[in-house]
Amino acid sequence: MSVEKLQRYREQMRTELDKVVEFWQKYSHDTQYGGFFTCIGKDGKIYDELKYVWLQGRQVWMYCRLYRTMERFNKPEILEAAKSGGAFLRRFARIPNSGSPWKCAFCLTRDGKALKVQRTIFSECFYVMAMDELARVTGDKDMQAEAAQMMDQLVHWVRVDPSGLGKPQLSGDTPVCSMAVPMMLLCLVQQLTEARSGEEVDKYREVGGWCVKQILQHLQRGGTAILESVSSEGKELPGCAGRLQNPGHALEAGWFLLQYGLENGDQELQRTAVDKFMEIPFLTGWDKEHGGLLYFLDVDGYCPTQLEWSMKLWWPHCEALIAYLMAYSHTKEPALLERFSQVYDYTFSHFSDAENGEWFGYLTQQGKVTLDFKGGPFKGFFHVPRCLYMCEKILDSILNKQES
Amino acid sequence: MSVEKLQRYREQMRTELDKVVEFWQKYSHDTQYGGFFTCIGKDGKIYDELKYVWLQGRQVWMYCRLYRTMERFNKPEILEAAKSGGAFLRRFARIPNSGSPWKCAFCLTRDGKALKVQRTIFSECFYVMAMDELARVTGDKDMQAEAAQMMDQLVHWVRVDPSGLGKPQLSGDTPVCSMAVPMMLLCLVQQLTEARSGEEVDKYREVGGWCVKQILQHLQRGGTAILESVSSEGKELPGCAGRLQNPGHALEAGWFLLQYGLENGDQELQRTAVDKFMEIPFLTGWDKEHGGLLYFLDVDGYCPTQLEWSMKLWWPHCEALIAYLMAYSHTKEPALLERFSQVYDYTFSHFSDAENGEWFGYLTQQGKVTLDFKGGPFKGFFHVPRCLYMCEKILDSILNKQES
Repeated sequence: MSVEKLQRYREQMRTELDKVVEFWQKYSHDTQYGGFFTCIGKDGKIYDELKYVWLQGRQVWMYCRLYRTMERFNKPEILEAAKSGGAFLRRFARIPNSGSPWKCAFCLTRDGKALKVQRTIFSECFYVMAMDELARVTGDKDMQAEAAQMMDQLVHWVRVDPSGLGKPQLSGDTPVCSMAVPMMLLCLVQQLTEARSGEEVDKYREVGGWCVKQILQHLQRGGTAILESVSSEGKELPGCAGRLQNPGHALEAGWFLLQYGLENGDQELQRTAVDKFMEIPFLTGWDKEHGGLLYFLDVDGYCPTQLEWSMKLWWPHCEALIAYLMAYSHTKEPALLERFSQVYDYTFSHFSDAENGEWFGYLTQQGKVTLDFKGGPFKGFFHVPRCLYMCEKILDSILNKQES
Repeated sequence: MSVEKLQRYREQMRTELDKVVEFWQKYSHDTQYGGFFTCIGKDGKIYDELKYVWLQGRQVWMYCRLYRTMERFNKPEILEAAKSGGAFLRRFARIPNSGSPWKCAFCLTRDGKALKVQRTIFSECFYVMAMDELARVTGDKDMQAEAAQMMDQLVHWVRVDPSGLGKPQLSGDTPVCSMAVPMMLLCLVQQLTEARSGEEVDKYREVGGWCVKQILQHLQRGGTAILESVSSEGKELPGCAGRLQNPGHALEAGWFLLQYGLENGDQELQRTAVDKFMEIPFLTGWDKEHGGLLYFLDVDGYCPTQLEWSMKLWWPHCEALIAYLMAYSHTKEPALLERFSQVYDYTFSHFSDAENGEWFGYLTQQGKVTLDFKGGPFKGFFHVPRCLYMCEKILDSILNKQES
């Protein structure tokens, strides 16, 4: 592929990132109560005022990361918005008298009252991501310490004792390993260790190694399938739950593993990341008839029970773009750039909204927009800008090497 | 409409009911552990062995109701299957040490171990329905008493103190009235009072009156909209949750209210049931472009956040058929028979599977089958046979009157 084509991709990523940042700056800031609205219609109108903690944390993180690592976003208004979100989270996300000082709500009212709590670790994970990244740009050591303390609690819940999460013990509910958990912890390990050293970092590195081992357990059936959930012994689970595949999630795991393999000089892990976690989901998940990545699949070809299984969601496409571009950048295998290109064409022609900015999130299998909002309970300022940001950075590095 | 047409409808309902009963008798019985498989593929193959308590209770109820009230189903094998399901439920559905002797699991393993529990009342409601109906055919007084005791617990959870359901108290989680709750209790009141009298029945009648009042609170905006959730003061709630409409659910409420209004000679309630709970969901929920009833709508025209909002599900169509036929049978308004006819044509041409029997449950907005199983975590032996059974009965009564 020509340098010109790579330059065009970079230009497109750059322009699109600017538009996306502009959209969220314009519509999502709650100047009255702090934090961010995330239920935003196609033209920017707020259709619900609830504040989802995952999305608050992700938006703080994303603003800070842009502020810290991209010159054109190193602007006071970006930092101020991140700080407002961070203050809102610190003040309201944690639930008083929940049995643990670290348990966070899933959803808050506009003015910060807890409305829903999940019996999982994800609200807390995005809280850690937000606080650590915000501490990096503000230099606030208390905030960094708070992120570290919450991380300790998370590791305890995951590796030692989950009872503090509030799930009742049921006799038929044998422990299940969901790929989301080690993925999320690995992401936090990378967040907390970046450009740092010392005892704390060694402790996280051990956690990172454990996460990688856990993720690799999801490669099943003699290395031919990535299954979303496995038993605690790393075996396939019975029934639908055991057979479930989530191609977008496998691709996201793929680039997490590749990044980790590169940082640690682990070539075998790099190969597994590309050949398994990036290749299998494409072969099974790409819709040959209509294009795009399917949301869920059953490894034995049964129909998944998730009603949305055949829909095309924005985020798996974001993860695929990062995965294939990162893989190409390190292997220089043209087939990977072809993959990137194929996903790119589908993604930019189906999700991006030239009229009002930002991306639609939810298409039918046939590629028609079926939920037309730009932000919702699970779609915030995260997957789209992270994808554009990372792709721009990777393309920069590819092009800089070619130019030098 | 001609008598011949009504006779053809009755013939179709009858033939289809026979086929549906045959399907579940053939594929769903677990002869090893008792109870029923409900995850059944398009051709009858079991694709998951989990046992969902809602569906176990519903199948017991449906078998018993058919056995008790339709001569051609008054057969020992139907009764045996119902008893097997009842024994499985009695042995395994309730969760030991859950804080209440009446709290039931949502999902069990094949051999009856609890896997999931919901913090709602619905598993328990279907348990009551099953036990009371089974007691009616077996004459088992202990079982009937058990149903009554669980009903007392349900009413306590709903009207006095929900804390036993295990939901944590959160400061922003103000009480919300979901239409499902009084609908379900009203259904149980009708189950428990049918052809009975005495002190117990008077107690239930009071509950029934309360349920009707609660359901009517969901008629909002000056009588122009049925909203799925309202505040405990009967006012519209803010945001998406407050604006949510579920046309199939409103139609189901419609025939519950009509039935109650007929039993109690309440003509105003009968009119409200037909003019509001049956008319509004059709005007707002019928898809003028593709036909069929949409699953969710936002009363102000925003896009719902439920990914499945535009799909066509089998059960709203079942409820619509019952509602319009029941309304026609009592009012003799030709427009209602036209409605029935319109829903009938869509339903039988899209959901019914002539090849392998039973109905598909999930179509795209355009009417294409997108989940092809016959049974799943929420689709069992209930909405389809209840609809066919009730429509056959109603058509019998219309035709018998015309013939006499």
